[in-house]
Amino acid sequence: MSSVALENLERLRRLAAEKGLERVVVYGPANIAHILGTDAARIAVVGDEPVLLVPRLEYLRALEERAAGRVIAVAKEAEWSEYEEGVKGDFLDALSILLEGVEPSKVGVAGAPKDFVSKLARKLGGRPANISKEYTLLRRRKTGGELELLSRAARVAEQAMQRAVDMLEPGVSEAEVAAEILSLMVSRGYTFSFYPIVAFGEHSAHPHAKPSPRRLRKGELVKIDLGARVEGYCSDMTRTFVLGDASSRQKKIYDAVLEAQERGVGALGVSVKAVKPYRAAYRVLGRRGLAKYFNHGLGHGVGVEIHEAPYLAPSSRETLQEGDVVTVEPGVYMAGYGGVRIEDMVVVTGEGARLLTFFDKFLEL
Amino acid sequence: MSSVALENLERLRRLAAEKGLERVVVYGPANIAHILGTDAARIAVVGDEPVLLVPRLEYLRALEERAAGRVIAVAKEAEWSEYEEGVKGDFLDALSILLEGVEPSKVGVAGAPKDFVSKLARKLGGRPANISKEYTLLRRRKTGGELELLSRAARVAEQAMQRAVDMLEPGVSEAEVAAEILSLMVSRGYTFSFYPIVAFGEHSAHPHAKPSPRRLRKGELVKIDLGARVEGYCSDMTRTFVLGDASSRQKKIYDAVLEAQERGVGALGVSVKAVKPYRAAYRVLGRRGLAKYFNHGLGHGVGVEIHEAPYLAPSSRETLQEGDVVTVEPGVYMAGYGGVRIEDMVVVTGEGARLLTFFDKFLEL
Repeated sequence: MSSVALENLERLRRLAAEKGLERVVVYGPANIAHILGTDAARIAVVGDEPVLLVPRLEYLRALEERAAGRVIAVAKEAEWSEYEEGVKGDFLDALSILLEGVEPSKVGVAGAPKDFVSKLARKLGGRPANISKEYTLLRRRKTGGELELLSRAARVAEQAMQRAVDMLEPGVSEAEVAAEILSLMVSRGYTFSFYPIVAFGEHSAHPHAKPSPRRLRKGELVKIDLGARVEGYCSDMTRTFVLGDASSRQKKIYDAVLEAQERGVGALGVSVKAVKPYRAAYRVLGRRGLAKYFNHGLGHGVGVEIHEAPYLAPSSRETLQEGDVVTVEPGVYMAGYGGVRIEDMVVVTGEGARLLTFFDKFLEL
Repeated sequence: MSSVALENLERLRRLAAEKGLERVVVYGPANIAHILGTDAARIAVVGDEPVLLVPRLEYLRALEERAAGRVIAVAKEAEWSEYEEGVKGDFLDALSILLEGVEPSKVGVAGAPKDFVSKLARKLGGRPANISKEYTLLRRRKTGGELELLSRAARVAEQAMQRAVDMLEPGVSEAEVAAEILSLMVSRGYTFSFYPIVAFGEHSAHPHAKPSPRRLRKGELVKIDLGARVEGYCSDMTRTFVLGDASSRQKKIYDAVLEAQERGVGALGVSVKAVKPYRAAYRVLGRRGLAKYFNHGLGHGVGVEIHEAPYLAPSSRETLQEGDVVTVEPGVYMAGYGGVRIEDMVVVTGEGARLLTFFDKFLEL
């Protein structure tokens, strides 16, 4: 991840230079992971040498994981050990020391909530420049190195999906399948990007079902949504199956969702409004009378966070750009019956969307 | 969890009645889990019949999991299905419909951030009563039913710790042990209250080490921190071992941490300042010249959240009360060498502290 993070750091530095900024205060573990390769810090200051401000107990982890920079522990009270460099006080106190002598208007802030920016302004005696919007666009635009890590995370997700499919037989429980998914990812030295969803029968009608002791029976729907995290980058994929022969109703719903998913993927492109693929998928389901059962957005961005910009939601106002990595995941959920969702992760390119997840789509096991 | 939640609901209703409130707006999944047994809702309104406001995709899960109340889905745009009851708009829009006709001063708010309270005040045309402090004290005071669930979660943690200990032999990796811990908890239908920490050798010097592919060697320290979640309630426990014979340095550190932990537990009691047990543990380590390596607080409350009030930190201003469930977990962390932490979960009673976790404390495996 180190070289991937350092490339992002350089991109942020270029953005700062364009804006005439001498320092950028980067807020939050995910943003800092993006530019410095560790989620151990709360705030980073990017200048010549980046500085990572960490809660005291994360000091050694930050020191080991960081792609670059100096690590400073922050604690209200502390008797420092010989191996620590620390500041007594809170994160704003530490920032005001680090930014001493820099004109507030030459300080940028990225990714911070409004009240933090206000507090920082009071501390600095002047308003810093909020570059969160520009930084979000930068974070959305995935580099080649990032796409490689996202693809590796997708490969692990596919392996976990295969393992889950291999377990699907009458009597297996949702919880047992979920445990196996987690175990596969973690034992190989990766981790999961979210708690896997494994839902059988009518339980699959919950979009965010929690794996339960419920046991699988023949003819039931099986919905599995899982993702891995590889060197900080996430994957996300959903497949729906039926154990044994599918009923004609199951087939109809499945085919509708599959077509909605394909139309959704097909509608993606550079400079396309993010709401457009949502509407394309919605229309397909609407024609079959199923749109009212599609009760969530079409997808979300994926990167160092499992949910990040852009969002393919009905209320979305974003416009897609090259390098956006998003999920496309329409679903139909019927209370007391079950649910079908099909989800892939794709990258937006000049030629439309390119798939990053490749697990076969088939209904009957 | 249903009867446990309903008892908490009644306790909140009594608090509301004492304050002369007709409704209480309860904010956030953890608080709602505490009184209504599900974390699917974002906001609940407690009056005669509780109302749970949920993101649309959580509607069915809330309906199934809730201990009581009516569920209303909230979505900006929606064509509702026949099984949903919904409000178009945001959560504040839904709240203003539900609270119509109630005088703002008769509305209480519990657990909400300041800016939400301000927005709600604008929406209602008057200031609601912020009862977050009183509600936090109520949530801290665990009932008999809650202590039973916390104990069950502790039993699962002990079983997972035993499984982990059984795996400790030369060549096993941190990640393999972590995978087994997760798998045991999840396959039995429980889940984990946090991602387990399994750290060998010098890696154990990271208080929050992430399990890695690092393999265990004889004579190394092994730090394992894990917790389960049973019907919404969490557990948390840490043990440190050495594979084979411990060196005299390892023994000295271990004995110091163990004594600090015992003194910390011994200092707990009703009406005791939360900082007192921290100081008691700190003094023990200070006498051995190890206090500077104790780089975090002594413990935290545990309940429906793995970290909740009260905090046994150097800067803590809280006072302990009967029914507080807290961890006591001093640690000593030396860069390049390793770390030792020993942690139990205890409940504060009129007779001092009573242990909730019982895994044996021994150094050598």
